[in-house]
Amino acid sequence: MVDIATRVYNHKWKIDPIIRSLIDTDFYKLLMCQSVFRNRPDTTVTFSLINRSKHIRLADLIDEGELREQLDHIRSLSLSRGESTWLRGNMFYGKRAMFRPDFMEWFEGMGLPPYHLEKRDGQYELTFEGKWHEVMLWEIPALAVLMELRSRAVLHTMGRFELQVLYARAMAKLWEKVEKLRGLDGLRLADFGTRRRHSFLWQDWCVQAMHEGLGNKFVGTSNCLIAMRREVEAIGTNAHELPMVYAALAETDEELRQAPYDVLADWHEEHDGNLRIILPDTYGTKGFLENAPDWLAGWTGIRIDSGDPATGAEIAIDWWKSRGEDPTKKLVIFSDGLDVDKIIELQNRFSGKVRPSFGWGTLMTNDFRGLTPNDSLAPFSIVCKAIAANGRPTVKLSDNPNKAMGPADEIARYKRVFGVGEQEAQEVVV
Amino acid sequence: MVDIATRVYNHKWKIDPIIRSLIDTDFYKLLMCQSVFRNRPDTTVTFSLINRSKHIRLADLIDEGELREQLDHIRSLSLSRGESTWLRGNMFYGKRAMFRPDFMEWFEGMGLPPYHLEKRDGQYELTFEGKWHEVMLWEIPALAVLMELRSRAVLHTMGRFELQVLYARAMAKLWEKVEKLRGLDGLRLADFGTRRRHSFLWQDWCVQAMHEGLGNKFVGTSNCLIAMRREVEAIGTNAHELPMVYAALAETDEELRQAPYDVLADWHEEHDGNLRIILPDTYGTKGFLENAPDWLAGWTGIRIDSGDPATGAEIAIDWWKSRGEDPTKKLVIFSDGLDVDKIIELQNRFSGKVRPSFGWGTLMTNDFRGLTPNDSLAPFSIVCKAIAANGRPTVKLSDNPNKAMGPADEIARYKRVFGVGEQEAQEVVV
Repeated sequence: MVDIATRVYNHKWKIDPIIRSLIDTDFYKLLMCQSVFRNRPDTTVTFSLINRSKHIRLADLIDEGELREQLDHIRSLSLSRGESTWLRGNMFYGKRAMFRPDFMEWFEGMGLPPYHLEKRDGQYELTFEGKWHEVMLWEIPALAVLMELRSRAVLHTMGRFELQVLYARAMAKLWEKVEKLRGLDGLRLADFGTRRRHSFLWQDWCVQAMHEGLGNKFVGTSNCLIAMRREVEAIGTNAHELPMVYAALAETDEELRQAPYDVLADWHEEHDGNLRIILPDTYGTKGFLENAPDWLAGWTGIRIDSGDPATGAEIAIDWWKSRGEDPTKKLVIFSDGLDVDKIIELQNRFSGKVRPSFGWGTLMTNDFRGLTPNDSLAPFSIVCKAIAANGRPTVKLSDNPNKAMGPADEIARYKRVFGVGEQEAQEVVV
Repeated sequence: MVDIATRVYNHKWKIDPIIRSLIDTDFYKLLMCQSVFRNRPDTTVTFSLINRSKHIRLADLIDEGELREQLDHIRSLSLSRGESTWLRGNMFYGKRAMFRPDFMEWFEGMGLPPYHLEKRDGQYELTFEGKWHEVMLWEIPALAVLMELRSRAVLHTMGRFELQVLYARAMAKLWEKVEKLRGLDGLRLADFGTRRRHSFLWQDWCVQAMHEGLGNKFVGTSNCLIAMRREVEAIGTNAHELPMVYAALAETDEELRQAPYDVLADWHEEHDGNLRIILPDTYGTKGFLENAPDWLAGWTGIRIDSGDPATGAEIAIDWWKSRGEDPTKKLVIFSDGLDVDKIIELQNRFSGKVRPSFGWGTLMTNDFRGLTPNDSLAPFSIVCKAIAANGRPTVKLSDNPNKAMGPADEIARYKRVFGVGEQEAQEVVV
């Protein structure tokens, strides 16, 4: 039987919205938002979308009017009652009332601030400016909208069965990964793929398939909406934007040197247990750990998000040992450009030495490589970053010079202040 | 929105019927039925199900009660008004009113006769006895029920996403075949896969996918119900049961020698054009053609259903030439155990020499090989054949001794009468 009402309802859409909820975003964004709301409520920042894959001419593929409609729709969203209840009442990382009442009251009343959109050289320049804790919430939906509009542009020309076979192939491809991973003893893997997913529905499918296929080896998703609906754990801690903005606000070189630790001192006050995860690479992992205060060695773990992941983990292990900590008790979360073979290699290498864990992103939720002619659905590398804070440019060095960003003179200053020397370049795929 | 009514309706099923229509059968069965109804209405035959793949212990896999429920359900079916209208009014092979009013009146009132079911040695012995034109209509549904109950038995243990991925893989597999075939100039291919399909819904999907993927290279399906619903051509001519039963009824060796030609004389009277297709292999292609009357050389084409297909086609070409016919005008329909590579090879070899055409069966509608552990869904070889007529055993020799059937002494007599010598054995896969 045709469900007439559903069909007529679908007819009435002016657009098919990509983002339908303010919590269709990464969990760590909300944790960081609360932290910023509490500690730096007056900071003004600018976020900017950067397409690192210049050969994908987004402005040729995606109609500007459609993009504006999607972005305008996101601005019309506010937190629903059920979403609010979930955020207030759900247990996250073993803790109830993770989000404080004053933050929730503000969040319930907020909407996303305006965006600024221009076309240049076949690309979109998309920027957001305003209060840090508001503007930061644009990052994930902005990326997801551009990724999915690009998917839709490619899918638009395909036939009914061609489409079905495309998704059949993508499903079979994901399931092969599940079958490779399910034999891996002690695996702990989460979905980190919201920002560069093929589409919302596809991410939702992937999470459910991983949940069935991997059982308790699949520990959850970074996507709050999917975590809520599918009743899996919401996963995530913090990101580079915190040290980047704190650093940009520093008045002196000494304050700059201290900024990354200030971030974690604020975090230390708010969170404990598995939320105490160091992200050490913003200005070079090695120097960051060498100069770190002793209390940081007591944190639960570390996230390796750039550079060679095995090297990063070994550096962390040596550091913990030098501070009298037992590495086998520590979480090491790998989250940079993972795919199955790399996950298996890292799990086998570090199992027993630390507690390895994986945040699997784009190649879980958007591995359409090889499924269409000219690889027109292969994922590509876009990011949306804080580029300025209170009018001053931000800088990121990372452990991979290909991921560095900021003005050249500022990069030079940061390298000097943080004592970063030669770095090994790694290709950025996704 | 959940369609509550559909869901509740589904709850009420006692069984999920595999065969839901009397025309969920091969078109040639109805053509032959009409011919038998007219020419041999008083013949009594026995059909019997034979599982050539003894390692598949059907009686261990399939519950007898479930099998009986499915068979009983088939006996409860009668032609619907819409089905009757379609059979009476649709154009088949360019002709309207293919089915005569007296036949349609009988068909509208008929139901399938009783079956006889026993278990022996892990197999089901399933036989049907009665008027030829009634009993013959059991063949296709009986085979389809056993194939699909076996599929269901395997699928029963699988999880929700595991199932979805299984079908995703099967779709991807079929589509790879479509992509290989779509570049083949002049291809003419039909679905002949009803009897050994994975399931009805899967066959229906395959037909639609081929229709979209191959365009007019896909010329139709042998399945009447799917042809009607999907508005594609219904395809088929005649089968071995006609010469087998005519031969069994022969009183003398001379009548026996003549029987295969008597079949085609009756057919000649009823049909013309693309329905005049010789099926020469029942008692050996070579002798059949050598001894054939001249009017048979004027027929439109030939179907190659056993033996090496290229050899069979070459024999036909030589025969046409020897009778002064132009082979390039003739249809050669390959229908034995085809898969993509064989289709491509035969099309390339015979394109231009004849008009090649393909009836693609089991490896189109049931190629689940390699998709489950232990290949538990791989197709296997079951047939349902007329084994006796008016109390006398039938015999089939075919061009492949592995496909021969009948009592040993009768096989010897037939070989003598039809002058069949050494034959090359071919493995029977499906």
